[in-house]
Amino acid sequence: MWKPDRQSKQPLYEQIADHLERRISYGEFPPGSLLPSERKLAEQLGVNRSTVVQSFAELRSMGIIESRTGSGTRVSKYKWGITPKHTPNWSRYAEGGSFLPNQPFMRRIRKALTEHPSLIDFASGELSKDLSPIDEITTLLNEPQSISYLGYDNPQGYTPLRQALVSYLRDYRGIQTTESSILITSGSQQSLYLITQCLLSPGDAVAIEDPSYCYSLPMFQSAGLRLFRLPVDQDGARPEDIRTLYKKHRIKMVFINPNFQNPTGTVLKAEQRIQLLNIASELGLPIVEDDPFSLTAYKETPPSPLKSIDSTGSILHIGSFSKIAASGLRIGWMVAPHTIVERLADARQQMDFGLSVIPQQVAAQFLKSPYVEPHLDRLRMNLLFRRDLLIEALEKELPGLVCYTIPQGGLHMWCKLVPKVHDGKLLEEAIKNGVVFVPGSVYGSDSGFVRFTFARPQVEEISSGVSKFAKALQNLTNNRRE
Amino acid sequence: MWKPDRQSKQPLYEQIADHLERRISYGEFPPGSLLPSERKLAEQLGVNRSTVVQSFAELRSMGIIESRTGSGTRVSKYKWGITPKHTPNWSRYAEGGSFLPNQPFMRRIRKALTEHPSLIDFASGELSKDLSPIDEITTLLNEPQSISYLGYDNPQGYTPLRQALVSYLRDYRGIQTTESSILITSGSQQSLYLITQCLLSPGDAVAIEDPSYCYSLPMFQSAGLRLFRLPVDQDGARPEDIRTLYKKHRIKMVFINPNFQNPTGTVLKAEQRIQLLNIASELGLPIVEDDPFSLTAYKETPPSPLKSIDSTGSILHIGSFSKIAASGLRIGWMVAPHTIVERLADARQQMDFGLSVIPQQVAAQFLKSPYVEPHLDRLRMNLLFRRDLLIEALEKELPGLVCYTIPQGGLHMWCKLVPKVHDGKLLEEAIKNGVVFVPGSVYGSDSGFVRFTFARPQVEEISSGVSKFAKALQNLTNNRRE
Repeated sequence: MWKPDRQSKQPLYEQIADHLERRISYGEFPPGSLLPSERKLAEQLGVNRSTVVQSFAELRSMGIIESRTGSGTRVSKYKWGITPKHTPNWSRYAEGGSFLPNQPFMRRIRKALTEHPSLIDFASGELSKDLSPIDEITTLLNEPQSISYLGYDNPQGYTPLRQALVSYLRDYRGIQTTESSILITSGSQQSLYLITQCLLSPGDAVAIEDPSYCYSLPMFQSAGLRLFRLPVDQDGARPEDIRTLYKKHRIKMVFINPNFQNPTGTVLKAEQRIQLLNIASELGLPIVEDDPFSLTAYKETPPSPLKSIDSTGSILHIGSFSKIAASGLRIGWMVAPHTIVERLADARQQMDFGLSVIPQQVAAQFLKSPYVEPHLDRLRMNLLFRRDLLIEALEKELPGLVCYTIPQGGLHMWCKLVPKVHDGKLLEEAIKNGVVFVPGSVYGSDSGFVRFTFARPQVEEISSGVSKFAKALQNLTNNRRE
Repeated sequence: MWKPDRQSKQPLYEQIADHLERRISYGEFPPGSLLPSERKLAEQLGVNRSTVVQSFAELRSMGIIESRTGSGTRVSKYKWGITPKHTPNWSRYAEGGSFLPNQPFMRRIRKALTEHPSLIDFASGELSKDLSPIDEITTLLNEPQSISYLGYDNPQGYTPLRQALVSYLRDYRGIQTTESSILITSGSQQSLYLITQCLLSPGDAVAIEDPSYCYSLPMFQSAGLRLFRLPVDQDGARPEDIRTLYKKHRIKMVFINPNFQNPTGTVLKAEQRIQLLNIASELGLPIVEDDPFSLTAYKETPPSPLKSIDSTGSILHIGSFSKIAASGLRIGWMVAPHTIVERLADARQQMDFGLSVIPQQVAAQFLKSPYVEPHLDRLRMNLLFRRDLLIEALEKELPGLVCYTIPQGGLHMWCKLVPKVHDGKLLEEAIKNGVVFVPGSVYGSDSGFVRFTFARPQVEEISSGVSKFAKALQNLTNNRRE
């Protein structure tokens, strides 16, 4: 990102004015559009606010921008005295579209993280750099690479990767499948997106867990689906609820995250798995099994996927490398009947013409390498260590103020706060204190729940992050008492 | 792909029966689903049809599959005599969904190419292997690679790639922009998809060229847009038509492919460019400029993009490496005002969580390498050579039977056939004769037009491909005369 040159003889405010003029004339900020605030720009450029105030004054005097009290600074529509021309009303276009924007809390979190990279990040649901097999992948990339083809890939995904996944799914997940039943996607997110767009129609009813990651995804609403809740307790969702929802609303599909559920961390009980499959088969109802976390099981054998005991072909199984290796690989997969794979592969061609061959080749090499097993062992050990650090910090900093069930796998800890606080206010106060988390309401739960991802922050940040969070909570509850 | 082992002592038909039983029991073909035909399986597995007939008989005798005359062979619902269970009706799910499948001709072409890789391919709109900078990219990949981060990427795309694109767009396309105005996408397809999903609402009217690539994309219909046509002649679209459409239908956006238009190869005339921008500014109408082909200009300087002379910020500029380097990189970009970039980046996070860092890193290295200029020179020279080979073959094999304007850039040649023939019949006959092309009706034109992509087949295939096409055309016209 551009920064003013402090060695230059040109005053800082002039450099900034020139820089802004360039961005305006190149079309980044078209006539009529809102500029970032003086405060924000000063922060981004690392200068005093007064310097930016001076730059804005300069641009105002040239007629390039206009400020009105209370409504910020905008690019002038009558730029450089030329006859007025009409720029499309871009902000109105940005507000349109059938595809809904992300949840406000999620956008707020992302914005906070972009603006303040030093925030301790309990929010991003991914592995920190040191938990990813970056060294292993770099080693693989630095082995002699040969690329035999760089054209459009097979619509189902790179064949050697699908072949490697057949072995991986058999050995690690107990799933018997064939390469023609696999669709490579860019991750669970794209798998879910394809399912909601291509197998369901607006108005269709579906069941999702409550709370669940699905709630955080406006894609379900964008697809016009009606969402019905399957409450999740410490044993997971109750399959009997599915029968009730089916009778009442004719649900057409069920979305389940049975192993170390996001956000609650629960594992669906063995009896309930069998019951779930029986009900699915009785009703001819497809179940989407989202299974990204299983191999993080800290101590016990990872729970088996539903797909491995699915005798009637009711399960669409979704997996990915994002939570067990590296989200930046952007490699996930779906195991599904052939007709479904064909339909989704065809649609995906239209949306993005498939994935790049290069990361698929790297992923296939990783799967065939001797690195997988040791990486997973190290990951599990480190996650357990971080989970315990988080628990220790919670007990120390928030004694009696949080309740939780200790997760046995996954990247998250789901906590209920004892004091009653407003989700949004707590988030803002936390950001002020230097830490972010995801408010539980993002996952559809009532106010007062919090998801802490302990896989993302550095080990040394966990305790201080919780201390900052405790400070924020204290500030809010104290204020209320005053 | 699995093939029977001809060295094995187990008879071929038994091996095939075992293989099919496995695919069925693993869920690739769930109960009730249709199996590939005996003829097709025989072809895929490289055995006599009678062998597959024997395998099917074996599976039938075990009660695993059932055949009914005229409706093919299906997996039995009462498998292995177990009480009937209900598998979801997957084919009905595959037929549902708001997102429409690809055009039948496009699916037919893809299927033909998958089943018969030896077909001469005038259909796929991409570069052949020897036109792509595969050696250069392999060299770059084999330089010491360091990966510093493999987490979720910046929602706008990898920053060093956006920085490299700022220089590239300035030097090669005369576009002044900033890295914060750039969104990295997986190609023009994804850029168009994001625009149709996020900036337009169902029922909105838009203008697209006729004929145009846009017609081949059901994504416009999937988004519920009303499409209005801008006829393209040898000078491109007529801007005055936009005003008419605006008055009549309140069109909200215009999609233009001004340089070596797909499929016609025309270049929008200079006066019409200025007129187009004036009308856009007069009406406050956004123009989407899809510009994938410019740098293929065989001899002259590549035509400048509309974006480079857009003073009112009306243009959303779309580019990609697919047609000038390698489609398998899956790297494209959009240059747009900041509000639009932010909106689309947010939506893309929900659809696929962004692109892998690895191909973005490779693309950035390629742009900064000394390879770009020599690669483009070689590409232009080779495309011109292939275009001339195609013209020579058309003149030799189809004298007086085709009309065309000679393109000065791009990968395609747009031909009008003199004899009246049915698009679909011609395609089938061509496939039978060993060649595929895209029927013009895919792009919205009347029957009797053909798009030949001369960049995809090997040099030595061009002449024999046209000869096979001529044979197919002759067969059809002869048959009619009989």
